[in-house]
Amino acid sequence: METKEARLAAIPKAILFEEEGDRFYILDQTRLPTEEVIEEQTNVEQVYDSIYQLKVRGAPAIGIAGAYGLLISLRDAVSMPRDDFVALARKNAEYLNSSRPTAVNLSWALNRMLTIVDAFPAEGSAQELYDLLRAEAIAIHQSDIATCRLIGEHGATLIDEGSGVMTLCNAGALATGGIGTALAPMYVAWADGKRFKAYSNETRPLLQGARITSWELHHFGVDVTLIVDSVASYLMKLGKVDLIIVGADRVAANGDTANKIGTSSLAINAKHYGVPFYIACPYSTIDPSSKSGADIVVEERGPEEVIYIKGQQIAPADVKVFNPAFDVTDHELIAGFITEKGIIRPPYDFAN
Amino acid sequence: METKEARLAAIPKAILFEEEGDRFYILDQTRLPTEEVIEEQTNVEQVYDSIYQLKVRGAPAIGIAGAYGLLISLRDAVSMPRDDFVALARKNAEYLNSSRPTAVNLSWALNRMLTIVDAFPAEGSAQELYDLLRAEAIAIHQSDIATCRLIGEHGATLIDEGSGVMTLCNAGALATGGIGTALAPMYVAWADGKRFKAYSNETRPLLQGARITSWELHHFGVDVTLIVDSVASYLMKLGKVDLIIVGADRVAANGDTANKIGTSSLAINAKHYGVPFYIACPYSTIDPSSKSGADIVVEERGPEEVIYIKGQQIAPADVKVFNPAFDVTDHELIAGFITEKGIIRPPYDFAN
Repeated sequence: METKEARLAAIPKAILFEEEGDRFYILDQTRLPTEEVIEEQTNVEQVYDSIYQLKVRGAPAIGIAGAYGLLISLRDAVSMPRDDFVALARKNAEYLNSSRPTAVNLSWALNRMLTIVDAFPAEGSAQELYDLLRAEAIAIHQSDIATCRLIGEHGATLIDEGSGVMTLCNAGALATGGIGTALAPMYVAWADGKRFKAYSNETRPLLQGARITSWELHHFGVDVTLIVDSVASYLMKLGKVDLIIVGADRVAANGDTANKIGTSSLAINAKHYGVPFYIACPYSTIDPSSKSGADIVVEERGPEEVIYIKGQQIAPADVKVFNPAFDVTDHELIAGFITEKGIIRPPYDFAN
Repeated sequence: METKEARLAAIPKAILFEEEGDRFYILDQTRLPTEEVIEEQTNVEQVYDSIYQLKVRGAPAIGIAGAYGLLISLRDAVSMPRDDFVALARKNAEYLNSSRPTAVNLSWALNRMLTIVDAFPAEGSAQELYDLLRAEAIAIHQSDIATCRLIGEHGATLIDEGSGVMTLCNAGALATGGIGTALAPMYVAWADGKRFKAYSNETRPLLQGARITSWELHHFGVDVTLIVDSVASYLMKLGKVDLIIVGADRVAANGDTANKIGTSSLAINAKHYGVPFYIACPYSTIDPSSKSGADIVVEERGPEEVIYIKGQQIAPADVKVFNPAFDVTDHELIAGFITEKGIIRPPYDFAN
C-alpha cells in the first residue's frame, strides 16, 4: 500500500535539484495549463530570464530559484582562483537579484548565500566555498519544504471528510519549494485519505487560480472545481463551502492581511454566510513593523492585464482601468492563521 | 447649446429602424469592443442568425428585433394574396421564435405581432395587414424607449454630483431599444450635466461589462473605469462607491432578484460597507408567480465559457467547472427597485 509520504511526493514541484551532478530544473509555469515542460537551468542568464518571465513565481519559490541559480552559475568555476570565484559569486548574485527587484524572498535568499561568501576565510578554496554555498541553497530549500509540510499538517485538522474547501489565487506547491501554503492542508488531508471538494477561484486578472491552482490540484488528483471569482458567494449561499484557506503577501501586527485582490471580498462573503476564513502562511510573512493594514501600500498594475487576456482584446483599448494587485482583509474577518508553529487564533497581536 | 434630448440621442443604439423605406439595422455586438459595425437586416434568415449569434442580445432588444425582423421579412410580400401573406407571417414568426427559444421577450413580441394577424379581418389586404404590423413593431420599440427613459429619470435622482456609481454586466442601451435599464440613470444624470465616476465590473465569464458596458459608456463620454469583478469590494472599502445599480432577469413577489452571477456578492459587499444597492428594471420583470428566490431556477452553463476566453485556453481542458449564469440576491439587501413607475422601496410585496 502506498504510504502518505509516497502520495505527497507526487505533488507537482516548481523546483527540482538533483544532488547527483548539482542539476537544477524548474517547471515552466508560463506554459501551464496546456503544456507541462520541465526545463533545466544551466546558466545565470537563463535563471534570470526564468524569474523575470515568471516561469518560476511565488515568493518562496523565487527565493529558492535564486539560491540554486547562483549555485549552478558557479558550478564550472570551482577551478578558479579563490578571489575570482568570490567576485563571480557577488556579480551573479547582484545580477539575479535584479530580475525581480521587489521580490523580498529573492534578496533574502541571495543575502543568505552572500553571507556565506562574506564569512568565508581567505585561505579557503573555491571548491570549499562552492560546497558551503551548495549546502546553504539546499538548506533554504529544505527549510521551505519543512515549513510547507507543517502548515499542511496543522491546516489539515480543519478539513472534514465530505466538506467543501475554497481557495483563491495560487498559494500552492508551485509557489513554494514544497507542498504550498494555502494548498498544503488540502494535500495533507487528501494524502491522509480524507475526501472533500476543492473550489478554485480563477483569480482575475492573471488567472493564477485557473492556470495554476486548478492544474496542480487536478494533476495530483484532488477533486477540484474551477469557478469564476463572482461564483464564490453563490457557492457559499448553496452551503457548499465549509472552509476557505488563502495565502498572504504580508500580515500586519494586528492581523490585517494583504493578499491577492479578491481576498477581502471572499472574507466578507464568508462572514455573511458564516464560513470560517483562514490565512495560511509561514511565520516570516508576518511583518510586525506594519501596525495595521493602513500601513500596507497596495501595488497598482497597468490596464493591459485587464484589457487583454492572452493577447485577446476584451475591452476598449483606451478605457480607464483600476487594477490593484492586492487588497487588505480586516483581521476581524479572519478565523485564524495557519502557520508552521500551529494555528493562531484571535485576538491577534503579532507586535511582539 | 446642445439640449438634453440631443445629448441622449448620442447614446449607442442596439436597433435602428428607418421609417423611410422600413429599413432595419442592428449594431453587431459580437464585434465589440474592437469594431463598430452596423448591419442592415434584409431577410428573415439573417435576423434569425443575428439573434442566434448574439449580434443582438438583451431581453428587450431581442423582442424588438423579433418584431422588426418579422416586419421586414414581409416587406416585399405585400402584393401577395391576403391568405398567402398571413401564412408567410405565421411561418416567419415561428421560425424567428426558434432562434432563442428561452427568451421570453422574443415570444412576447412575436405574439403581439401574431395577435394583430389573428384579429385581421378576412376582407383586408396584405398591405393593410403589413401597415398594422409595422405600427405594432414601432409601438413595441417606442414603448421600450419610453420605459427606459422613465427608469433613467427616476434613477438619476439617486446620482449625486461627484459620486461613484457601479454596475455589473450590461443592462445598458445595447440590451434594450432605448437607453437601457441599469445604465439609464447614468445617461440621464450625465445628460443633465451631473459629473460622476462610473465603475463597470467586467462580469466573467462572458465579460459583458468589459466588452459592452464599458464600451457604451465610454463611447457616450461617461467617465467609466473598468475593473475585474473582485475589485468591487476593494473600491467600496476605499469609499469610492456611493451607489450600485444593476439590472434584473426576474424579480420574485418578495423582491428576491435573479440577475447575472456576481450580483449577490456585490449586494453583500454593499451591505458590509453601507453602500445602497438598487435594481433597475421594467415592471414587466416582476414575476408575482415566483413567491421568493427559492422558486427561481438558476441556469447552469457549460465549462467551456470559463476554460476558454476568445478561443484561448486558460485552465486544464478537463477540469470540473461550476458555471451558473445567474444568482439570486436576497430582497433584504436591496435598497429599492427603479422602475418606469418610480422607485419602489421596502417592504416589497409584488404579489398583488
